[in-house]
Amino acid sequence: MKDIARELGVSVATVSRALKDSPRISMEKRTRIKAFAQEHNFFPNVIAESLRNSRTKPVKLIGVIIPQLTHFYFSSILSGIEEEASARGYRIMVAQSNERYEREVEICKSFSENKACGIIVSQAKNTTKYEHFSNLMDRGVPVVFYDRICTGINCSRVVVDDYMGAYTAVNHLIGTGCKKIAFYGTPMKLEITKNRYNGYHDALVNNGLKPEERFIKHCDNRADAEQITPELLNEDDHPDAFFAVNDDTAIGILYTAKRMGFDIPRDISICGFTNGERAIACDPMLTTVEQRGFVVGEEAANILIGQVEGSIPSDKVEKRVVRTRLIVRGTTR
Amino acid sequence: MKDIARELGVSVATVSRALKDSPRISMEKRTRIKAFAQEHNFFPNVIAESLRNSRTKPVKLIGVIIPQLTHFYFSSILSGIEEEASARGYRIMVAQSNERYEREVEICKSFSENKACGIIVSQAKNTTKYEHFSNLMDRGVPVVFYDRICTGINCSRVVVDDYMGAYTAVNHLIGTGCKKIAFYGTPMKLEITKNRYNGYHDALVNNGLKPEERFIKHCDNRADAEQITPELLNEDDHPDAFFAVNDDTAIGILYTAKRMGFDIPRDISICGFTNGERAIACDPMLTTVEQRGFVVGEEAANILIGQVEGSIPSDKVEKRVVRTRLIVRGTTR
Repeated sequence: MKDIARELGVSVATVSRALKDSPRISMEKRTRIKAFAQEHNFFPNVIAESLRNSRTKPVKLIGVIIPQLTHFYFSSILSGIEEEASARGYRIMVAQSNERYEREVEICKSFSENKACGIIVSQAKNTTKYEHFSNLMDRGVPVVFYDRICTGINCSRVVVDDYMGAYTAVNHLIGTGCKKIAFYGTPMKLEITKNRYNGYHDALVNNGLKPEERFIKHCDNRADAEQITPELLNEDDHPDAFFAVNDDTAIGILYTAKRMGFDIPRDISICGFTNGERAIACDPMLTTVEQRGFVVGEEAANILIGQVEGSIPSDKVEKRVVRTRLIVRGTTR
Repeated sequence: MKDIARELGVSVATVSRALKDSPRISMEKRTRIKAFAQEHNFFPNVIAESLRNSRTKPVKLIGVIIPQLTHFYFSSILSGIEEEASARGYRIMVAQSNERYEREVEICKSFSENKACGIIVSQAKNTTKYEHFSNLMDRGVPVVFYDRICTGINCSRVVVDDYMGAYTAVNHLIGTGCKKIAFYGTPMKLEITKNRYNGYHDALVNNGLKPEERFIKHCDNRADAEQITPELLNEDDHPDAFFAVNDDTAIGILYTAKRMGFDIPRDISICGFTNGERAIACDPMLTTVEQRGFVVGEEAANILIGQVEGSIPSDKVEKRVVRTRLIVRGTTR
């Protein structure tokens, strides 16, 4: 592997990861490294590697709490956590809270009994007490939050740059000629909504447009979007663009507008937030802000393992922000 | 909880699950039970429950190997496994093989070192040796397969009824007037493709139609579907329906046919297999065979825990089949 790394001018770790098909290495680089390895008859010797890695004691376990495993964004995050943990010689325990505070408490307890070296968690929607987390931290078990951040205690976290994601998206809508842009989001008490609203607001103001109260709606799912959108679009002075808090909501707007006879994107532009499977299944394909769940997961595991191993002081509150990316497709001009 | 169970004529376990919002209980029943509990001021006492469940030793860990966490079908299965394990007092360790035999071997080894009481696995595509599984079984660690079944050793498994799923779907296409039905699938060496092809074949024959070689294609993803479908549809005697091995492929056919000017479903009917997020995001929404991953996961965990606890003899090869369900939407007449 050292030879390959030298020949191709990359690190040994990169070669090792590429040969293991790690998604952390770009597809193009993986292909190049694997082709080179094959050309030079290099095959990682599984048996030898397995002997060399032979351990006498179990590997450390990281506990991961996830609200819903079947949500694409959460399963991408879990995939990133698993990948980083696995590459660093850790395994993960996984449990879903199903958005229930009681289950979250019970999970923390059993993770602790099973000697989890740390916990990575996105809290349930109805969690408002935090002893189950702070108890762990008091006993020296690091806790890292992702996506839904615990505002009750000061703790390490990974979030996406919701403000810039929204700002960039709305700026793009304005740049393509839209002037009356609606905002569909969750209630403002949630941190992510506040940040996205501010991004939306500032993009309008910086482009000389005035935010209008009647264009701001509480709406975060397709069914609700299909119900409230006709009212907005039936007005004479209707929006010429929509920025939605997730892809599901954006798709509800898209099909409602199509059904009402609007041409997308000529008459109405639409931008979502997530970039999951849905975004390329709809017609036309959805312009959206990619949340990069895989990277969020990797970063969360990276902080946690750093704290477990001491490269990050366990009492340091480490905050990381993952950049979003605007993916322009067929629902904007 | 006993009182509620008696009043509503359900089991105590059902009440407990409903109050914990378990998806094993129908939404309608959950709502009814929760409403009744609220009306009678019944609130599960979290603290008391937590004390009562207080354990002195760690819970047992089940190891779960998954090819790709971000695939909707796999994450649904994982959700079912987690739900059943959690309800029975177990936790799960999760690792993804990324379709690599070497990783699968390494994962089995580390799960074993971490004292997994059993392993639930869908094998990697390139796995052709099975010692890593049979070694575990020889040491009395039960192994249960789901989705991709290990044909090399005789072991417990949960599969979906691919034959009946395909038969029912093709029968529906014929019943709505289609006569020339194409089949897009993976190579026939895979068990699931063989079974689905047989279902397709028998539905045609039982309806007096003749299977035609030129309508059978190797194709299991959208990009390939977009490439090979125009050729088929440009023929004068083109198919009037398509049955595809998954939703992704079906969506590739759908948009290719639309782009070529065909009206869906008037000119061409399309049926997929999975029923993931994509199926309701496309336009029109996709008729598809639902694979019920959640139930597959529940059944797999149920077998494994039965073998761990002795209610199923650990040397018994337990095979379960999960029924599919045809979901009729806008891509069929």
